[in-house]
Amino acid sequence: MTAYDDLMAFQRQTEALAQVAGRLGWDQETMMPRGAAEQRSEELAAMEGVLHARRTDPRIADWLAASDPADPVGRAQVRLIRRSYDRAVKVPARLAEEIARVTSVAQGIWAGARAADDVAAFLPVLTEVIGLRREEAACLARGGDPYDALIDDYEPGMTAVDIGALFDRMRPRLVALRAAVLASPHQPQPLEGHFGTEAQLRLARDLATAFGYNWDNGRLDLAVHPFSSGSGADVRITTRVVETDPFNCLYSTIHEVGHACYELGIDPDYALTPLGSGVSMGVHESQSRIYENQLGRGRAFTGWLHGQMRDRFGDFGIASPDAFHGTVNRVRPGYIRTEADEVQYNLHIMMRFDLERALMRGDLAPRDLEAAWNDRFLADFGVAVDRPSHGMLQDVHWSVGLFGYFPTYALGNIYAGCLYQALRAAVPDLDAQLAQGDTSGATGWLRENLQRHGGLYAPREVVTRACGFAPTEGPLLDYLEAKFGEIYRL
Amino acid sequence: MTAYDDLMAFQRQTEALAQVAGRLGWDQETMMPRGAAEQRSEELAAMEGVLHARRTDPRIADWLAASDPADPVGRAQVRLIRRSYDRAVKVPARLAEEIARVTSVAQGIWAGARAADDVAAFLPVLTEVIGLRREEAACLARGGDPYDALIDDYEPGMTAVDIGALFDRMRPRLVALRAAVLASPHQPQPLEGHFGTEAQLRLARDLATAFGYNWDNGRLDLAVHPFSSGSGADVRITTRVVETDPFNCLYSTIHEVGHACYELGIDPDYALTPLGSGVSMGVHESQSRIYENQLGRGRAFTGWLHGQMRDRFGDFGIASPDAFHGTVNRVRPGYIRTEADEVQYNLHIMMRFDLERALMRGDLAPRDLEAAWNDRFLADFGVAVDRPSHGMLQDVHWSVGLFGYFPTYALGNIYAGCLYQALRAAVPDLDAQLAQGDTSGATGWLRENLQRHGGLYAPREVVTRACGFAPTEGPLLDYLEAKFGEIYRL
Repeated sequence: MTAYDDLMAFQRQTEALAQVAGRLGWDQETMMPRGAAEQRSEELAAMEGVLHARRTDPRIADWLAASDPADPVGRAQVRLIRRSYDRAVKVPARLAEEIARVTSVAQGIWAGARAADDVAAFLPVLTEVIGLRREEAACLARGGDPYDALIDDYEPGMTAVDIGALFDRMRPRLVALRAAVLASPHQPQPLEGHFGTEAQLRLARDLATAFGYNWDNGRLDLAVHPFSSGSGADVRITTRVVETDPFNCLYSTIHEVGHACYELGIDPDYALTPLGSGVSMGVHESQSRIYENQLGRGRAFTGWLHGQMRDRFGDFGIASPDAFHGTVNRVRPGYIRTEADEVQYNLHIMMRFDLERALMRGDLAPRDLEAAWNDRFLADFGVAVDRPSHGMLQDVHWSVGLFGYFPTYALGNIYAGCLYQALRAAVPDLDAQLAQGDTSGATGWLRENLQRHGGLYAPREVVTRACGFAPTEGPLLDYLEAKFGEIYRL
Repeated sequence: MTAYDDLMAFQRQTEALAQVAGRLGWDQETMMPRGAAEQRSEELAAMEGVLHARRTDPRIADWLAASDPADPVGRAQVRLIRRSYDRAVKVPARLAEEIARVTSVAQGIWAGARAADDVAAFLPVLTEVIGLRREEAACLARGGDPYDALIDDYEPGMTAVDIGALFDRMRPRLVALRAAVLASPHQPQPLEGHFGTEAQLRLARDLATAFGYNWDNGRLDLAVHPFSSGSGADVRITTRVVETDPFNCLYSTIHEVGHACYELGIDPDYALTPLGSGVSMGVHESQSRIYENQLGRGRAFTGWLHGQMRDRFGDFGIASPDAFHGTVNRVRPGYIRTEADEVQYNLHIMMRFDLERALMRGDLAPRDLEAAWNDRFLADFGVAVDRPSHGMLQDVHWSVGLFGYFPTYALGNIYAGCLYQALRAAVPDLDAQLAQGDTSGATGWLRENLQRHGGLYAPREVVTRACGFAPTEGPLLDYLEAKFGEIYRL
């Protein structure tokens, strides 16, 4: 046994334990009886204690010092383990525990505050969370931009300056497109009617199958919020059902299938190693978004879906596939990020990016956040926020300390735009396939060119390799302008 | 913080991690996609590694040496932790790992051998498992009877000599009762017909509710083998459905509800401590058996159940409650322990006890086990075993190294017999309650007098306290002779 072998054996057990902790999270949202919540939090805390001890185990430093694998896979493993170890030991155990404790309390307080539209009830704990994460960021940044240190946790190598520049280039075109779309006289028809839960779930399962989800290594359950969970050979997804809005269930299922297929598409040789899961949140989101939007909401696939829905739900008032395509892609004013369409979604992200960047730098005080949010929303969306649950209280992220995470959603959209451009060039009859409900050309290309690499390459590198060019905002914006230009006859 | 506080804080995390490992087992049998089996075994092995390291952590010895709590609860905690630690450190890590490795392989080999009725395919790995468990038992026994050391793991304080004496007293009366019942001209009618899965499961849920199962802290799912899983605030049960035999689903549900209610009935102050789970396998089985048999298969409750079944399944060919009571308690010759009725069940256990005792002492070679099994079965049941899957290959236990476990099933029956005698004296209108489907008098008495104590008292002690007398075989045998004498008009 070399030091590298010892390191990888130790790491493999840590990865297995991390999968266990993840499975507990899945159970909590899907299966756990409600009276078990308090005990579960102790179970999760005990698992986190075990994982933290392993991730900061001093033997890792010794093994790393003595490891020098010659092959690219081994070098990538060492690089990721070193990165994770360096981050883990920079944060004092006391601070890590305090963050875990406060954020677990804060989430409950946030949920109550959102339900009551009561910013004041949330502000004290939000202030505490912000303080703790700034302290952590300072430990990690060691003199650099603390917000960058947080971003790096979700999107390694990405910086606030780079993201800011990207967003600055995107914003004017998105604001203009949004305005033109909303002003167009050619508004698609809304979907109306009642769509039974069982039929929605059957169709959702069929869509998951159509997008290549492997049921031998996964399952679909109901949860309050759709999510994908797990790596390796066990990647489960959840969905939810709103009987007046089947697109909610169907497209959140496709979205989660994108996440799950990324995990399941990784080279099985990497399972239970640092290479064995998605390389970043942005690249992860690129897969969920391209499955959901560029493929699932494209004209070719919605034509097939229209037939499926008519077969299952009968006549639901939208007779032509073209009209149905408009309905699927309907753009309406709205306050809520998670309900936003492709045109407006990134605008929601950009304002969060600027606000949390200012919070982390200390340029914005938590008590001023609500006013800053509402001002910015009015500027970008032309509408005044009518209540805090439609404003700064709408997202869970900040309550659990997720600063630096929001921009990865927009990065995912940008990467998806690039990948879609490359995919169309690589698979000339893509639309003909999708029009038959056959996604295998698209998903096979994504698996081969991106998904299978797992953590082998850095995020931008793996997208660049797949596309043949470095990711930029252009392809996404071109795609959005063309697609919505056609639907809204701009 | 005193040493005792440190010890209990450490132990609490260990108990929480043990709950997590148990939940993985539940998931594996109920929810896990089949392609995840190999990864799951690594996850479980990693959890076992963590638990073993904690259970043998040398700090436990220091804390124990410095702990001297004055109250009975603290003293019981220290006693159980010391017992567990002493056992854990007596077994070399190499041996513990080897047992885990071999038994996990052996279970698969056993399943294949049983399906193929091929003893020879099982014998090599069984021999290996027996050798390893004898080695472990020798480590634990330190000069005492090695089989006792294994029994002590499941039924602390019980010995093979005591069990042997109990069984010797029981056997003649059970053999005689069995012969008389099978020879009686008054044989109950068999249940025939088709009983839909959904209706069976609805009734199973209602039975679980009737027996006081708290759905806020549990759930019911399907699995190949019914089981109960978890302690504290999250105790889940499973059942199975055979559409031609609804009693399979209904009574296995009541049985598992008995196990689950024991766990859920323990004083919540003991949760995630050594006192917070059932004190022994025998006492656990006493609860599942008294729920299933003395209560669930008693004349009063079957009268109520008869009405429930007629309401749900219509006329199923058994019109009178008395006839239905006979059908529920029908005694038929059979090879299989898990299908055995109350009269024959303990005879199955007694032969396994004698055989595994001889195996552990080295008085019986594994290669001679099949002949010894078949000889003994013929002697006790008057029937020749027709194939190994009806004989020594029928149970999973030995393949996974569970030697010393079988007798706890019979001890459970004995304890249940004693508890039922005491319960009848304490709740004079018990039958009137049960005839209404109301088990609250019975389950309330069991919770108050036995379940709530968890691990506070030793197994025999807690039964003695509940009953007011030391447990013996008499009440069980008297009950069986009276009940089956009436049904079969002996």
